[in-house]
Amino acid sequence: MSKQSVSKWDLFEASFIGPDAGNPYIDVSFEAFFKQNSRVVRVPGFYDGAGTYKVRFMPDNEGEWTYTTISSVAELDGQTGAFSVMPPTAGNHGPVHVANQFHFAYADGTPYLPFGTTSYAWTHQPLDLQAETLKTLAGARFNKMRMAVFPKDYPFNVNEPLFDIFERDEEGELDFDRPNPVAFRHFEMQVAALCKLGIEADIIIFHPYDRWGYCDMSSAQDYRFVGYLTARLAAFRNVWWSLANEYDFLLNSKPMAQWDRYFQIIEENDPYRHLKSIHNGDVKANYDHRKPWVSHVCIQNWDVKRTQEWRDAYGKPVVNDEPEYEGNILLSWGNISAEELVHRYWITLLRGGYAGHGETFMHPEDILWWAKGGVLHGEAWKRIGFLRDILEQDVKKGLTPLAPSDNWPWSRVSGASDGDVVYIYLGEHQPVIWAPGLPTEPGDYDVDVIDTWNMTVNPARIVDAPANHPTRHGAQTRSRRPDAVFAVELPGKPHLAIRIRRRR
Amino acid sequence: MSKQSVSKWDLFEASFIGPDAGNPYIDVSFEAFFKQNSRVVRVPGFYDGAGTYKVRFMPDNEGEWTYTTISSVAELDGQTGAFSVMPPTAGNHGPVHVANQFHFAYADGTPYLPFGTTSYAWTHQPLDLQAETLKTLAGARFNKMRMAVFPKDYPFNVNEPLFDIFERDEEGELDFDRPNPVAFRHFEMQVAALCKLGIEADIIIFHPYDRWGYCDMSSAQDYRFVGYLTARLAAFRNVWWSLANEYDFLLNSKPMAQWDRYFQIIEENDPYRHLKSIHNGDVKANYDHRKPWVSHVCIQNWDVKRTQEWRDAYGKPVVNDEPEYEGNILLSWGNISAEELVHRYWITLLRGGYAGHGETFMHPEDILWWAKGGVLHGEAWKRIGFLRDILEQDVKKGLTPLAPSDNWPWSRVSGASDGDVVYIYLGEHQPVIWAPGLPTEPGDYDVDVIDTWNMTVNPARIVDAPANHPTRHGAQTRSRRPDAVFAVELPGKPHLAIRIRRRR
Repeated sequence: MSKQSVSKWDLFEASFIGPDAGNPYIDVSFEAFFKQNSRVVRVPGFYDGAGTYKVRFMPDNEGEWTYTTISSVAELDGQTGAFSVMPPTAGNHGPVHVANQFHFAYADGTPYLPFGTTSYAWTHQPLDLQAETLKTLAGARFNKMRMAVFPKDYPFNVNEPLFDIFERDEEGELDFDRPNPVAFRHFEMQVAALCKLGIEADIIIFHPYDRWGYCDMSSAQDYRFVGYLTARLAAFRNVWWSLANEYDFLLNSKPMAQWDRYFQIIEENDPYRHLKSIHNGDVKANYDHRKPWVSHVCIQNWDVKRTQEWRDAYGKPVVNDEPEYEGNILLSWGNISAEELVHRYWITLLRGGYAGHGETFMHPEDILWWAKGGVLHGEAWKRIGFLRDILEQDVKKGLTPLAPSDNWPWSRVSGASDGDVVYIYLGEHQPVIWAPGLPTEPGDYDVDVIDTWNMTVNPARIVDAPANHPTRHGAQTRSRRPDAVFAVELPGKPHLAIRIRRRR
Repeated sequence: MSKQSVSKWDLFEASFIGPDAGNPYIDVSFEAFFKQNSRVVRVPGFYDGAGTYKVRFMPDNEGEWTYTTISSVAELDGQTGAFSVMPPTAGNHGPVHVANQFHFAYADGTPYLPFGTTSYAWTHQPLDLQAETLKTLAGARFNKMRMAVFPKDYPFNVNEPLFDIFERDEEGELDFDRPNPVAFRHFEMQVAALCKLGIEADIIIFHPYDRWGYCDMSSAQDYRFVGYLTARLAAFRNVWWSLANEYDFLLNSKPMAQWDRYFQIIEENDPYRHLKSIHNGDVKANYDHRKPWVSHVCIQNWDVKRTQEWRDAYGKPVVNDEPEYEGNILLSWGNISAEELVHRYWITLLRGGYAGHGETFMHPEDILWWAKGGVLHGEAWKRIGFLRDILEQDVKKGLTPLAPSDNWPWSRVSGASDGDVVYIYLGEHQPVIWAPGLPTEPGDYDVDVIDTWNMTVNPARIVDAPANHPTRHGAQTRSRRPDAVFAVELPGKPHLAIRIRRRR
């Protein structure tokens, strides 16, 4: 028998036959130790139904690996194997981690700028709709998807899911002690499909939109569920763990200590340390994202000019995954204009954060992208893709806000830099001449004016910097006497950005 | 000699001849006690140059009044007089005061909703430009003007003022111990001209935009100046006292205790207790508006959805006198679009505050409305007038935000009520159906959709309220299960408002 091989950061899986009596999910302990030279990595296994036990592993180093299993039952204990890890295939950059404090990068060092969208229950819809969702994603520029494990019960979301997440007993009741492997296999297939499209799966573990009882599982059942999910999915390189959507709407049944414990269980079972975050409902109910198991700030907040506050408060990357959605439904988080969502994206990005997309347009069959997927009906997604393309041309480390401690003018307009590139987003401001944030020393610069809505980039008209008007008060001189070496003339209309690139 | 008469809330003035040697501004004390029956009102007099001393009084009650002067010099001491106070003439509603905690009313009880504009140095411009400014104001719908006593030195403001505020000595230096009566007489004439137009004069006493030395007067000179100004101007019924524009940019020369003292000097010398406020520069440098001598919160802040926070923090009317200005200059407080300023007006008003207008468009002769007056070049002022007309149709006590303690949905959209009228401003939101804030009990209602930009009011299309989707979590039911008895269909575009009036 020839030795198995797998690419670095791809998924290695080994299957074993064991007992199927009783409740193997609870009764049988099963894990494996993967070894390369002196290095040992503990990986939990899981029961996949019908007497099958599996262990999955995402190797992060090329070369020869071996493994040994440990189990409470004899036939699963002491099993060994060996496999080779080959170089990653093209387009496989490994999992995403935090880089440069406020930003992200793939494991191979390639910068990763999250441009996520949201379709909470897309894997629970009819298969043809799921196929359409994947096709839409293939034609858009999103590289992250927020998606829930559990199905969704909510306005516009009243259909039954494709699969129950747990098996049903003889009375037809969900048995929260027996995960349904069929549901998980399907979910994993779609996580893998996203991976092929270069899309990270931001997996939402708990949410409050429930009529089936998933919200009311016991804490022991929750903990087992989180462990099971981690054992099944952690080896997929595009997995992010989102502990909840609107966790605070669940606090009446799941107190804060329980949320901390969910995080810890993932840490105990995910040897790859995938990104972990938790999403708030009420803007005043942010989780304490300073806790060490939180990798980045996931936030719901429409007041995007506050992005700097969240960077300061938590010292971690800020992903505003719900700055309200483009749409026209009654609910106010889901009915802003495309212009406004694009505006909020530019503000968020140029204050050193990241933003998330969603679409909630009324639909005769209640197929709203934000929950069910399908096709995109709005106008924002194209401009968000344009913004991604613009930034990926030059951003390497991630954007740092211009003079974040200086109230002027960067609380009013947005600007950020990364190395030799500076971006300024004027938004609702429409000056006919602009100087703050422009170079203060002579040099060769390419300066462009970007129309964020019409998606055009044109060379800026350069003029002399405005003369300094002497003022009495030092406090005013920083901006009112711009020390820029030149200024940019603008057409005096909103939603423009300026890009300055230093020529090397 | 027939007895003088004056209308209630008009200005009574008596003149006397006294010494003109030395420095009468400092050397001579002069005040009067105005009496009606047992009531006595102390009123400070002032030196008007050339040996003339004056005392001014704004009677607030009809009937017979007498007065007696008191002075440190014999010829000004013990002078007496009498006059009759007649009913107010048409359009004279008296001075404006705080009413209903967060709002304003004229002394006769007529509601006053401030719709102010800004032209800091308009009284310091050539006379033909001042005439043009008054003509523009007569054709607009503003009822408050922010205007400074001192001239202004700033970008776009480099011309010399029409009059020095103090007299010059033989070397041509300003003598800050000798006010220039010519300058004050002109200023008062323009305050009176505004009064005729129904416009309150929000008089800015100090500001940092100075090259003449007004900023560097000693504390004793400041205190005398404030007292002199109060003695001259308090009897004009349309006077408001604005202690400063951007007071915090003056803190390096005028410490906080000095600001408190300015307020107190006004309280000591203004028997009518005109409105008093103070305006910040940095958004983090608000004066403590809870201090008892502050009548209302004057604020500079572009983040207008925070209006509720300022109501809560200070418990007084909130007038956001600088939510950024319509224009196209380089400076970011002066280059937002007309659409954005109108948007910020609606948000501010429908969260229970008031907003101020300003215009800063580049002009070949540097005649920018915000400082020099002239004509209006923008598009916001018409929509602001439209908003005033809309509100004045129904608002009596002042607008109270809808469910201010409830985060949902009123942190995202804006809504307010006054008695039997409710307004909802959707702003950047564009639902095709709306229910929150609509009546929850059956009745006869007039419901209109207002296009805030195109200035149209049309009857709303009424439809059944959306069915309630049962949700598990109580926290969601307030809004996601609207208990409105009907809903409104909307065209799905931004910047619409809804007005609901209950028929009696």
